[in-house]
Amino acid sequence: MPTIKDIAARLGVSIGTVSKALHSAPDISESLKKTILETAVEMGYKTRGNFSREDRRTVLFIENMAYEKESDFGYDIVLGFKKSAAQEHFEVTVIPVTAEYQRQNSYDALLLKNRFCGAFLLGFSLEDPWMEQLKTTSTPTVLFDNLVMHNPHVGSVGTDPFEGIDMAVEHLVQNGHEKIAFLNGSVGSLISDQRMRAYLNSMYEHHLPIDPDLAVYGYYVADAARYHVPGFLEKGATAILCGNDLIASGVIECCRQMGYRVPEDISVIGFDDIPLATTLSPPLTTVRQDRSQLGKCGLYILHAMMNGIPMSRTLLRPSLAIRESVAGAKPRLPLRRTNDPDSILNVNPALYSQFVTHKSV
Amino acid sequence: MPTIKDIAARLGVSIGTVSKALHSAPDISESLKKTILETAVEMGYKTRGNFSREDRRTVLFIENMAYEKESDFGYDIVLGFKKSAAQEHFEVTVIPVTAEYQRQNSYDALLLKNRFCGAFLLGFSLEDPWMEQLKTTSTPTVLFDNLVMHNPHVGSVGTDPFEGIDMAVEHLVQNGHEKIAFLNGSVGSLISDQRMRAYLNSMYEHHLPIDPDLAVYGYYVADAARYHVPGFLEKGATAILCGNDLIASGVIECCRQMGYRVPEDISVIGFDDIPLATTLSPPLTTVRQDRSQLGKCGLYILHAMMNGIPMSRTLLRPSLAIRESVAGAKPRLPLRRTNDPDSILNVNPALYSQFVTHKSV
Repeated sequence: MPTIKDIAARLGVSIGTVSKALHSAPDISESLKKTILETAVEMGYKTRGNFSREDRRTVLFIENMAYEKESDFGYDIVLGFKKSAAQEHFEVTVIPVTAEYQRQNSYDALLLKNRFCGAFLLGFSLEDPWMEQLKTTSTPTVLFDNLVMHNPHVGSVGTDPFEGIDMAVEHLVQNGHEKIAFLNGSVGSLISDQRMRAYLNSMYEHHLPIDPDLAVYGYYVADAARYHVPGFLEKGATAILCGNDLIASGVIECCRQMGYRVPEDISVIGFDDIPLATTLSPPLTTVRQDRSQLGKCGLYILHAMMNGIPMSRTLLRPSLAIRESVAGAKPRLPLRRTNDPDSILNVNPALYSQFVTHKSV
Repeated sequence: MPTIKDIAARLGVSIGTVSKALHSAPDISESLKKTILETAVEMGYKTRGNFSREDRRTVLFIENMAYEKESDFGYDIVLGFKKSAAQEHFEVTVIPVTAEYQRQNSYDALLLKNRFCGAFLLGFSLEDPWMEQLKTTSTPTVLFDNLVMHNPHVGSVGTDPFEGIDMAVEHLVQNGHEKIAFLNGSVGSLISDQRMRAYLNSMYEHHLPIDPDLAVYGYYVADAARYHVPGFLEKGATAILCGNDLIASGVIECCRQMGYRVPEDISVIGFDDIPLATTLSPPLTTVRQDRSQLGKCGLYILHAMMNGIPMSRTLLRPSLAIRESVAGAKPRLPLRRTNDPDSILNVNPALYSQFVTHKSV
């Protein structure tokens, strides 16, 4: 690894000047500091993480995820991360970022300038400007619910979608359901794809037929329901599994507007267990992601990566929060009959290729 | 959680006697100690892990995996675990176990008696007697290359098979190979299934046809090669990807006996990168599992679980150790022609159901 001396030699400045830039001293011009930081990043200079207490500086970057109120999705994740950090003697700085902020700040230079030895990123999607830079960063970085392939310095944490969806399907099967529809979130996101695969797997393992009309992508918003629920009901679905709790709230509302009762006529299950789930009518049965544990896990995975371990994916166990939105199946004939025998496919995970749209970075 | 007092009350013995049993004091009969330990386990008593230094006792159970010599598969895993343990101030006891030992010792009682707060298990398969007990244990436990469903106290670590196999296929494709055979390990093991899925996925994503005759399960031994390599060659395969390095050593030997040169006529890639890989002729290109990092990772995951985090699966990044067993493809016509157009399927991961045989615990 290059030293401060190497950087100084490359730029023809003094060692003291490089040191000032790396420590963001006030008595150095912004443009010189920028040049020095960019050169340091380019040469592969890293803050030496010997992990003495003053060097255990971590940062939590948050993009497009609410986290300030207790009811916000990110609140418990941030709190969990901070709790584990305190226990393991790490400092935490929380920085909310926008796409514009990302465009203005090089990821590595920002970390270097602030002497952050590791970062936990919440709410980032494939479209975020920093995702490209994450392919090559050498600073230990953990992404929540997203994945960067082939870079051993970027790990991922999330909740096991296969176990979670399987718990939901199993619960529905125990209640006599067979025609189980799945209204997923957006096309092209990693977690949507995983949840779709998980649904197909679980239906297959429960020997239930998979109907392409009952396994669809929408968006992660309540409003997605009205475009798909009428079709599900026409096809005779007795239960609707949803890509998240917001979608489930829309499904319940949509069923009600169409004159169906939840759970007496239609059972509904969500995913996430956000605070909204308990306030719905009926309270929502949902696959629970323990967000506090996810935050804690983020710190432990980051700690391992700061010790040089090339973590790829880490998944936590989900649980099923059983409330009142599932009841025994009341079979209903499809309102619309089809003559096409292929419209209900007794398929296996073959359907993956048809449904799975996401390509990892 | 029940206290020592509760256990004493249940059995009608003194608190001092229970304490003696839990600390394996010498002045208590074996039969009374056994009764007390079993009652403690049944009542859900746990060693209080407040993780003061004297309570940070972990154990590494090893079944069916050599680890004592530097060339043994388990050697670096054990060493890595111990290194991280030393760094994080955990004690480690290594205990090799047999199936008979497992039958004679209840898993939970053994941990309790020895005041172990967490365990890392190497080399266990679904047939091991303790696997049934792992479904219900509440002691933080990490399994290497195996998985127990639905118990948040049992986590899993391994190497990402999808990224590993994809690196191997990509390397072969870069060298002009298209007819890539896969000689996998044993049917019904978790890692065999994952590697088969990974192969099917990667072939599909590289737009290469999957021929069921070129994607087969054997055993994790060198001898598996002679049953399958002749068929691969007849079908015109130019490269053979192997489920592990032992299989690859057999494949190289078998090719040689049949008059084919590796890599000039046939390219071969292994999986694991055990010390044997470098001593083969030619030295073997193989997907590398970093066993030292896997051991280190085991400790960090166990640490997280001892702090109550319900870890499920954790995967590390593989790398590709490029040596001399891959060369540019030299296309050869199949020796045996078939008239059945379906014998080469332009399939997608549909083939999963046909190939994937493992059911998790």
